[in-house]
Amino acid sequence: MGIAYDGTDFAGWAVQNDQRTVAGELAAALAVVVRLPGPPLLTVAGRTDAGVHATGQVAHVDLPADVDLGVLVPRLARALPADVRVGAATPVPPEFDARFTALRRHYAYRVCDHQASADPLRRNHVVTWPRPLDLGALNAASALLLGEHDFVAFCKRREGATTIRELQRLDWSRAADGTLEARVSADAFCHSMVRSLVGALLAVGEGRKPPGWPAGMLTATERPSAITVAPAHGLALVGVDYPADAELAARTELTRRVRTL
Amino acid sequence: MGIAYDGTDFAGWAVQNDQRTVAGELAAALAVVVRLPGPPLLTVAGRTDAGVHATGQVAHVDLPADVDLGVLVPRLARALPADVRVGAATPVPPEFDARFTALRRHYAYRVCDHQASADPLRRNHVVTWPRPLDLGALNAASALLLGEHDFVAFCKRREGATTIRELQRLDWSRAADGTLEARVSADAFCHSMVRSLVGALLAVGEGRKPPGWPAGMLTATERPSAITVAPAHGLALVGVDYPADAELAARTELTRRVRTL
Repeated sequence: MGIAYDGTDFAGWAVQNDQRTVAGELAAALAVVVRLPGPPLLTVAGRTDAGVHATGQVAHVDLPADVDLGVLVPRLARALPADVRVGAATPVPPEFDARFTALRRHYAYRVCDHQASADPLRRNHVVTWPRPLDLGALNAASALLLGEHDFVAFCKRREGATTIRELQRLDWSRAADGTLEARVSADAFCHSMVRSLVGALLAVGEGRKPPGWPAGMLTATERPSAITVAPAHGLALVGVDYPADAELAARTELTRRVRTL
Repeated sequence: MGIAYDGTDFAGWAVQNDQRTVAGELAAALAVVVRLPGPPLLTVAGRTDAGVHATGQVAHVDLPADVDLGVLVPRLARALPADVRVGAATPVPPEFDARFTALRRHYAYRVCDHQASADPLRRNHVVTWPRPLDLGALNAASALLLGEHDFVAFCKRREGATTIRELQRLDWSRAADGTLEARVSADAFCHSMVRSLVGALLAVGEGRKPPGWPAGMLTATERPSAITVAPAHGLALVGVDYPADAELAARTELTRRVRTL
């Protein structure tokens, strides 16, 4: 399923007791539309935090073989609240896993550094920054972070999870309306990694730190206190890449072998 | 002042007791920033209803002559809530009146007729329509409404106010993402006129009424019950035209003479 949501009124993707979550709303709608005995388990490409949006999220779910996906999508649109949409649903081979077979995740982070021209209609999707940001400095600092590194300095530590990631794209552009947008791509991201990278880069952009500062922290062995996590509402998951079906089976077999080694 | 706002959480432009209004927030912020004894009186080009947005609203206000407008704009940006912004403020000649010297108002109305692809991030700014809309039929019906007419069939009657208006533009286009946008311009609009026109046109767009139906109501002498006012949140005031300063004085003098005739 290709999924879009406005994260403003959600406590993030993952189901939590007594909280309104994207996965919770989706599973509830699926249970009603497909007439399942209970909410199904969803596997997602990128678990987004509270307030983070998505225009290109992907999740998979196991459904009875007789479900007509052409009917499911419009029925889900009617069953879901207006802040989450399943735009498409396609059958996938059994090897497909929205999380483990994803090759790449793409995020965008948006910030407006001119308070008087901040668009009120995008206030939940673009962070307003109170000081001017230097595009050249942002890009110079970003380029130094590309490649495979241990991003532990930019990750909220989780027991046992690797923090080695390949950052494949990180660059900034300024739109005609003055809004700055960072595009960030990696094979995978650890928890709060995009927002920590952006937080460090914004310190460079406003001139408080030199362009080499964020990359200098790649040698840190733990999260430095100087890094501020940028606000959630500027962040959106914009896409996820998967291998073609033909590659999928071979790749999954390979992954299984690597995991058993 | 050039003003933008997200109408979602406002009970419209005009100050009302115990309601959160755009004029109320603006007047309160101006009183604080300029240190006025009380909220000043604002005159606006287009009084928008509850839920209606603006990207190009214009209002004028009388302020002490020593107010520095270059300082006022950033201070207002800090004092105002995030859903309303004064993007610019310029001194105007005494003849200028945001309402009475406006030559033309421009509105946009946005609707998505494919529920599954409705963008959750624009759910407060684009109406989701449950049935497909025919662009050709919308434009054919719209073209028949152009020109100077008595739009009483499309206006909420107000004692003494004229309902004769010149509709200068009304056409629809479909964006790459499938969203339909109507652009509507007139010298002035009476109350609920754009939403009533759009409501009638949507009945044509979904095939319930023939393209000649909305224009046929121009001969009505009161508001027909068959017209449904389209939802507020699809509507935005996108711009207001004024004469150049040089023309303003002459035009104002002329208007005064006509009014005294």
